[in-house]
Amino acid sequence: MPRKINGVGIQVEDTQVCVVMVGLPARGKSYIAQRAQRYLRWLDIPAETFNVGNYRRNSAPQPTADFFDTNNPEGERKRRAAAEAAVADMLKWFANGGIVGILDATNSTKERRKWVMDEVAKAGVDVIFVESKCDNEELILANIRDVKTTSPDYKGKDPEAAALDFRNRIRNYEKAYKSINEDGDEDDLTYLKIMDVGKQVIINRIQDYLQSRIVYYLMNLRIRPRTVWLSRHGESMLNLEGRIGGDAVLSHRGEEYARKLPELVRASVGDDRPLTVWTSTLKRTISTARFLPKHYNQLQWKALDELDAGVCDGLTYQEIKDRFPEDFAARDADKYNYRYRGGESYRDVVIRLEPIIMELERSEDILIISHQAVIRCIYAYFMQKNQEDSPWLPVPLHTLIKLTTRAYGTDQEKTAANIKAVSTWRGKGSTARHEDPVPEGGI
Amino acid sequence: MPRKINGVGIQVEDTQVCVVMVGLPARGKSYIAQRAQRYLRWLDIPAETFNVGNYRRNSAPQPTADFFDTNNPEGERKRRAAAEAAVADMLKWFANGGIVGILDATNSTKERRKWVMDEVAKAGVDVIFVESKCDNEELILANIRDVKTTSPDYKGKDPEAAALDFRNRIRNYEKAYKSINEDGDEDDLTYLKIMDVGKQVIINRIQDYLQSRIVYYLMNLRIRPRTVWLSRHGESMLNLEGRIGGDAVLSHRGEEYARKLPELVRASVGDDRPLTVWTSTLKRTISTARFLPKHYNQLQWKALDELDAGVCDGLTYQEIKDRFPEDFAARDADKYNYRYRGGESYRDVVIRLEPIIMELERSEDILIISHQAVIRCIYAYFMQKNQEDSPWLPVPLHTLIKLTTRAYGTDQEKTAANIKAVSTWRGKGSTARHEDPVPEGGI
Repeated sequence: MPRKINGVGIQVEDTQVCVVMVGLPARGKSYIAQRAQRYLRWLDIPAETFNVGNYRRNSAPQPTADFFDTNNPEGERKRRAAAEAAVADMLKWFANGGIVGILDATNSTKERRKWVMDEVAKAGVDVIFVESKCDNEELILANIRDVKTTSPDYKGKDPEAAALDFRNRIRNYEKAYKSINEDGDEDDLTYLKIMDVGKQVIINRIQDYLQSRIVYYLMNLRIRPRTVWLSRHGESMLNLEGRIGGDAVLSHRGEEYARKLPELVRASVGDDRPLTVWTSTLKRTISTARFLPKHYNQLQWKALDELDAGVCDGLTYQEIKDRFPEDFAARDADKYNYRYRGGESYRDVVIRLEPIIMELERSEDILIISHQAVIRCIYAYFMQKNQEDSPWLPVPLHTLIKLTTRAYGTDQEKTAANIKAVSTWRGKGSTARHEDPVPEGGI
Repeated sequence: MPRKINGVGIQVEDTQVCVVMVGLPARGKSYIAQRAQRYLRWLDIPAETFNVGNYRRNSAPQPTADFFDTNNPEGERKRRAAAEAAVADMLKWFANGGIVGILDATNSTKERRKWVMDEVAKAGVDVIFVESKCDNEELILANIRDVKTTSPDYKGKDPEAAALDFRNRIRNYEKAYKSINEDGDEDDLTYLKIMDVGKQVIINRIQDYLQSRIVYYLMNLRIRPRTVWLSRHGESMLNLEGRIGGDAVLSHRGEEYARKLPELVRASVGDDRPLTVWTSTLKRTISTARFLPKHYNQLQWKALDELDAGVCDGLTYQEIKDRFPEDFAARDADKYNYRYRGGESYRDVVIRLEPIIMELERSEDILIISHQAVIRCIYAYFMQKNQEDSPWLPVPLHTLIKLTTRAYGTDQEKTAANIKAVSTWRGKGSTARHEDPVPEGGI
């Protein structure tokens, strides 16, 4: 039964969408599938990937290339059975309220696509095909390198033999491969075709809201590694007092951090690399950015302002508990969804950060100087933190965080400025002005 | 010299973009050009359209179809001169800080596109070609009808003769027409090709932020007429007191409006037509929507909340003037850009409404129940109001506004519920609780 997701500014209505990946092996399909899943889940849209290879490994754990030859009936039968099992599980998942199911497989023939389309349509679920078509040798080689070292299909095998076998597997797929609508008879399908990693994109018959969100996200994806730096503003005068929100100036130590930041950034970014700096519109982030090299572009985004605490803006946690005891308890019970009176919830912040995430996906080398809650939400996107945990993440002041996106995950590096600052982390139930020690497992 | 637009959450950096329209006559090129211009200007990005036809009319006011025959040297010469004059003016405009120039012409041959590309590139301006390719007879006929009645080329002519001549003109263009990259040798161009009004879209080599904004907007454009209904919430308790912001419940009369709204909506929308209702997250809009038919989808958007008045939230204008006299004056001096301390400016509201506008372009039949400032911004988008005027627009309470987008503009219809309400309009400098009379020229 479709779930209605209302009240969050993401309109899903009654639609369920099955994203069916299409493409030869080593074209980045799984990468695209995983990124789509991460993005949708971050927006609180239930999304799940069904990888046909995982199902096939139940009956054929480490097949050689000839298993994928279309003239191998045993291979054909097992591959077909794996696809059927994956689709069956996916349809069960849709029946339980899933919104976006992603079928991660080659689906490289018209017949296979027609079969998937029919099965999924019977369940009342819309289908959008997403093909990654790529003739860029460099990218294919990089993917082959990746597969031979990480795929369970080749675990324990000689890497060179694995690479050779995998190339032969690709060749077997190529024999039967048809790009979507290559013959002009799949014109009625809804599809997105991404050529050579976004160099060209074809979008066919996309109508629905949710589909167009997915398409817009995927067409902005860059596959090569990118780096994003995050920092909170320097310690502010209100931080010292344990007050939340406001628009205070930096403390003496916060100033010190602002002066040291250029050095930290240069060491991490490199001297000559151009960088764009995004701050919020609040004094404490703009001040923190003000000693950075003049040749960096700087942009202020209202969307990077701290979570709006509404009537609680400028209060200490003790004052909030005294004046709004029910709100204090409600927030601790569900910090992600609790919306301050006249203010925002973490969920609201995620929604307003969505364009920022889209820009980050498209841009390269951005330094974001923002606030505790905002950095938690951005960090949660990159590091796939769930919504129960992310509002509680410790984010230290006076620390530069470097996130580098890789094919399957994000690397993290932290540089402390070694300038003392208060702790603004708060544990559940606590009204401490500055809570120490801060638990492990933070950013 | 490129202008930097910072601090508004729209990243333009140093880029200037020339949007070069491509396509046969009657393919909706001017419609697309005008919509792009409207959208960009709403986002405060300087945009201007240069229509080659207007330049050509200086030397050939009402040419017949044979003027457009490629074998007519006189016609060729004059058309070439018109294109040169338009491009020259456009480059002058770029030199004075223009950001997005739109060249509205057929540009239907490879040679012409190469020439435009070279001229514009010399000035350091990026080029994106936007082709509307359409074989849909119905749409072409509608455009021909439009042209024969509205184009200055056929003013005073017999409509049937005009239609015939225009068809011959199209035929002359067809002789030389090449769709972009039809021969595969324009692969290096950055282009967007819109086929059959968005049924299929091809996006080639789009990289830059501003280009991808334009592309995303254009791929969401629907050409057929659509309707959007707007209403403010019913009169609230704070409206009665002349206080701004807050999260008050409806007054007695506001309740009356909520109860009458279903009748107004039914009369305007029709009984059976499905409708989606968007409200803000504030009580007064949700209450106003609560008697609408149950089969309407309802969605709450934080992005539709009223302009955040920050420290002035809940105050009367007299109190604001007393407590923050400098802010009061600064706001009146530049209401669009003035940002309340800890709150928002109209500019901020436009930025956060941008995804709403994008959704509106894609959706059909939406009723928005929101707030004075928000409705001003949405209205300004559809009716092309400029930023100096839009923050001062009178928007009456207890009134349903129907906006229907047409090819060249938006029709407006207003239905008053005939339920009294206070006036919340305020003239420059005034601190009146309820100012009457309200000037003419409002929504």
